[in-house]
Amino acid sequence: MPDRYFVDKPLAAGIAIIAGDEARHLVGVMRAKLGDEVVLFDGCGHEADATIEKTAKERVELRVETVRDVPREFASQLTLAVALPKGDRQKWLVEKLVELGCDALLPLETDRGVAQPVESAIERLKRGVLEASKQSGRALLMRIEAPASSDTLFSAATVHNQPCFIAHPGGCSLDQAWDQSSGNALFAIGPEGGFSDREVQLAEQAGFQKVSLGPTILRIETAAIAIAALRMLRSS
Amino acid sequence: MPDRYFVDKPLAAGIAIIAGDEARHLVGVMRAKLGDEVVLFDGCGHEADATIEKTAKERVELRVETVRDVPREFASQLTLAVALPKGDRQKWLVEKLVELGCDALLPLETDRGVAQPVESAIERLKRGVLEASKQSGRALLMRIEAPASSDTLFSAATVHNQPCFIAHPGGCSLDQAWDQSSGNALFAIGPEGGFSDREVQLAEQAGFQKVSLGPTILRIETAAIAIAALRMLRSS
Repeated sequence: MPDRYFVDKPLAAGIAIIAGDEARHLVGVMRAKLGDEVVLFDGCGHEADATIEKTAKERVELRVETVRDVPREFASQLTLAVALPKGDRQKWLVEKLVELGCDALLPLETDRGVAQPVESAIERLKRGVLEASKQSGRALLMRIEAPASSDTLFSAATVHNQPCFIAHPGGCSLDQAWDQSSGNALFAIGPEGGFSDREVQLAEQAGFQKVSLGPTILRIETAAIAIAALRMLRSS
Repeated sequence: MPDRYFVDKPLAAGIAIIAGDEARHLVGVMRAKLGDEVVLFDGCGHEADATIEKTAKERVELRVETVRDVPREFASQLTLAVALPKGDRQKWLVEKLVELGCDALLPLETDRGVAQPVESAIERLKRGVLEASKQSGRALLMRIEAPASSDTLFSAATVHNQPCFIAHPGGCSLDQAWDQSSGNALFAIGPEGGFSDREVQLAEQAGFQKVSLGPTILRIETAAIAIAALRMLRSS
């Protein structure tokens, strides 16, 4: 996989522009010159080979000949609603979920959560999505959804238009959840210490089904990664 | 899960000793006092409640009444032979594999590998196993096997006494590998850039089967974690 650069408009034949950090990286770090060829992706499912026609510090113009669709996504839609872990674990969570083909991450505010999904955290998550996409060859950007409270998420499973599960001891196995959903599902993952009884009750009333993730205690990011891994490996 | 402390001898009724770092943590950081109760584990499948009878800086004596077997392991044996990733990613790899119930990690020296499994690295991996075990509730320590070169590993699959797979594009799916092995398997995972053609050829001659890990490019640690996650989720 060659170095891939992100353009924030859908790719089409003609001129494409790389701007900001991406341009600085291409010109300043990678020392790209006129005539060099790079691969562009637009985060909406397309890639293109492109030739550099003009460079400036924060803006690179490239000539795109043909745009190709990249079939690296799954037919199902997997959304993980996750009580964000602390510090570096957030960065890891995003990197791994992008690699494993997760479609959307929804930062979840819970009774026991510690890391709040403030605006700067959300921005950091989005930058993480871009970095991991460049490296892993994904053609669609994983969506970072607007943060929601557990009260909102657990209002009614039907709102989400897909089978909904809550990671909690004593539920069905993830394999059973898979059989019901074929990976087309929303999974809610609680903070260290788990969801409160109140939250579990709310979720069950709303039609979420409990799913159990094995005999050991998984950290937040491990639980999320395990679910995404199962979906990927059983889809491919 | 309460705080768990490691004793490096199999637990039995009577006196147990916590020494070194573990003792410093218990006395210096956790401020444990005479009469406090803690949970001990011995890394061979046992746990026990214990009462502190004597404390010193590097040595704590505890009274153990009853020892219990902890049924948190899988019937299958999963070994991952992995070209170590760089820096912090090694720590993550170990933490996640312990949480996900992997049985053994074998550091693999490959044609394209960069991080060498030197003695200090192996020691760090072993410390990582202990830390993650305390947190995740595992009762058996994941083994860190002696490092091996790809030439040695790929000498003959029969040497390993279990179905052997090599992660490489174009192979069977991991789900098919599962059906053949029920998680009782050895998987070899190459460095960034993958195994060399020479290594893939050696492996196939030795009876290793190629297994493909999905449409995106997975980092080393993500590939390992995904395999362990599938084994855990399909075993429980």
